[in-house]
Amino acid sequence: MALIVQKYGGSSLESAERIRAVAQRIVATRDAGNDVVVVCSAMGDTTDELLDLAAQVNPTPPAREMDMLLTAGERISNSLVAMAVASHGAEVQSFTGSQAGVITTERHGNARIIEVTPGRVQEAVDQGKVAIVAGFQGVNRDTRDVTTLGRGGSDTTAVALAAAMGADVCEIYSDVDGVYTADPRIVPSAQKLDQLCFEEMLELAASGSKILVLRSVEYARAFNVALRVRSSYSNDPGTLVAGALEDIPVEEAVLSGVATDDSEAKITLLGIPDTPGEAAKIFRALADAEINIDMVLQNISSSEDHKTDITFTLPTADRARVIDLLEELRQAEGWDDLTYNDGIGKVSLVGAGMKSHPGVTADFTEALRDAGINIEMITTSEIRITAVVRQQDLATAARAIHERFDLGGDEPAVVYAGTGR
Amino acid sequence: MALIVQKYGGSSLESAERIRAVAQRIVATRDAGNDVVVVCSAMGDTTDELLDLAAQVNPTPPAREMDMLLTAGERISNSLVAMAVASHGAEVQSFTGSQAGVITTERHGNARIIEVTPGRVQEAVDQGKVAIVAGFQGVNRDTRDVTTLGRGGSDTTAVALAAAMGADVCEIYSDVDGVYTADPRIVPSAQKLDQLCFEEMLELAASGSKILVLRSVEYARAFNVALRVRSSYSNDPGTLVAGALEDIPVEEAVLSGVATDDSEAKITLLGIPDTPGEAAKIFRALADAEINIDMVLQNISSSEDHKTDITFTLPTADRARVIDLLEELRQAEGWDDLTYNDGIGKVSLVGAGMKSHPGVTADFTEALRDAGINIEMITTSEIRITAVVRQQDLATAARAIHERFDLGGDEPAVVYAGTGR
Repeated sequence: MALIVQKYGGSSLESAERIRAVAQRIVATRDAGNDVVVVCSAMGDTTDELLDLAAQVNPTPPAREMDMLLTAGERISNSLVAMAVASHGAEVQSFTGSQAGVITTERHGNARIIEVTPGRVQEAVDQGKVAIVAGFQGVNRDTRDVTTLGRGGSDTTAVALAAAMGADVCEIYSDVDGVYTADPRIVPSAQKLDQLCFEEMLELAASGSKILVLRSVEYARAFNVALRVRSSYSNDPGTLVAGALEDIPVEEAVLSGVATDDSEAKITLLGIPDTPGEAAKIFRALADAEINIDMVLQNISSSEDHKTDITFTLPTADRARVIDLLEELRQAEGWDDLTYNDGIGKVSLVGAGMKSHPGVTADFTEALRDAGINIEMITTSEIRITAVVRQQDLATAARAIHERFDLGGDEPAVVYAGTGR
Repeated sequence: MALIVQKYGGSSLESAERIRAVAQRIVATRDAGNDVVVVCSAMGDTTDELLDLAAQVNPTPPAREMDMLLTAGERISNSLVAMAVASHGAEVQSFTGSQAGVITTERHGNARIIEVTPGRVQEAVDQGKVAIVAGFQGVNRDTRDVTTLGRGGSDTTAVALAAAMGADVCEIYSDVDGVYTADPRIVPSAQKLDQLCFEEMLELAASGSKILVLRSVEYARAFNVALRVRSSYSNDPGTLVAGALEDIPVEEAVLSGVATDDSEAKITLLGIPDTPGEAAKIFRALADAEINIDMVLQNISSSEDHKTDITFTLPTADRARVIDLLEELRQAEGWDDLTYNDGIGKVSLVGAGMKSHPGVTADFTEALRDAGINIEMITTSEIRITAVVRQQDLATAARAIHERFDLGGDEPAVVYAGTGR
């Protein structure tokens, strides 16, 4: 008998009809002889509706109260799924994050899981019950206040619970039936992958793939929890995310896919003295403001004035804060200029096969050249190549790379309603 | 500095706009130098919407899961009110029923409060914060499961919290600005009462007045918590419910008002042997089925066959269960017949003044006679007279009694949208 943790996203629970369908799947999994623990997101647009109400009563609501508000969404979906499972005659019990022992830091709105002590959930499972756990939420041990885990928090709840309970697999259900070699809306020949390792999934998530949130993959990797990405609309086995990069035999290592990201902007600081410590000033200021930066590039200094330029990318959502911060720094330090450009996109190629194929970077850059696309920045890791291009070239770039590395299938990808969450 | 508990009903919180208005009132109360603890019901139709969703996934949902579902409604209103209060710069903290220490029995859907241990709420108040507590909900001490308190549960939460914290007054806000001498929709000359004692309010609530739920008045009386019934749409001081019947001086005792109730039906069992123990069989069977009965009347036995008839009233909602139960009993015992009539209504006159005015019953019955209304049953208590009449005569009966006892004011009552919850 296996222990299976299933996580259902909001689009899988957007109506009473969908909830009944999810309940059938849960009961079928149980009837097949498995123990089942289910983690639910809030129904469909619930979270957006609650955010809208909050904005109407207070444009800058206290974070603690926002967490109290938003966690109601998962309580609703959670209890409705439990009721739907009970309608099949199965024994079932729902749990809030707190009841399930999801202990977090106190940072409201973006808390981290410190530990999971799922004693009550385990007890319910031992009694033959299906356990339904509210995702996205936990409780701060010191103040006993309700916290939320930030974007993708329900995935993280599911993975953490699977790790704490020693589950055999953690199935992540959404409206997409697996991890694809590219976003099928951009690359129609994209095909579903049967399996990839944690590191490949991490690189894809970090490069713009929306299928799994980065933090949940990091957690799965750290605790070696096998993930299966599946659709709640089909019986396709989906994509298995499991195993370490170093365990993949060289002859089986392939290229996994192409990811795109149009959510970042590029900032360049010009005319910085090419002396030790100047660059550090920039990155310390950004770190202190808790702003994540991504690709960093420093040009060689020009021979005349011993000055250099530093460029990096960052989420466009942080634009206002970052420009204010750096403009102040620039004036204080007397640097020449600051430019901001959000008309960029990142295209990345990811795969364990890169390690053993030295020509990949050459093929990658040639593919872009042949498509007439200029590369503005380029970086590589052990299993990833990323180029920054103009945003209007992003889709063309993804298709060119996808085709050059022969990642496509013979049949067009199946795209479900709402794909791309 | 006074400690004021304020309870806001669903209609007072039905939109973001109404929540902002409630927040202004809370902040004004605090700025006037009071400590404030607020208890919120769920917003407007939230509870009905959740019940509808539940019915769609399971027609007979488990009670524990139903409580988990419904308590989400108060969490939402609770946190939104807290955010709205915070927008005025006031320090504020919201609490679930569990966090506020509302400990209940384990009977899901209709739990009773065992005790309130509001340590965290008191701490917040001591720190100068406004405390916002989710109404209608508690936690079962043994299983730590979330429970709900049944109809009017938020009133009960407010009164219990006021009792536990030694509040000076518990203000119950709705869309009605006080307790009236009659339902203004039925009796246009009804006027608002300034004050009445707990016993009078209990009799009115038990006789069909919807303004306060019976249980919350019982709780207030038991713990001597002064209630003030007010409208969240006006600054009218409303009606004070406080003090014991025996403390009212005879010369100040008056008649409080007329209540009507069209939610009951009348059952008569005919041809029961007039011997000891026969009636007890009926009432034991009903008690075992947890059915509340109200007025009971046994006719004298007819001289010929030594048989009698027994009549009582009960909520029409229990019709099917009661008829099944009693028909089975009737056949087993060989009683002659069972009749059921839901075309009845109860009209009651309530007031401490009844004790000192011996002619009240005569005036009451004459008022109905003069209006051409037949009395089907009649009962009295120390401060109440109740008559059962035909339902179609109920409004006429209420107006006739209200006029006979000169309870009306000179001006028509102010009726707000939604009056009559």
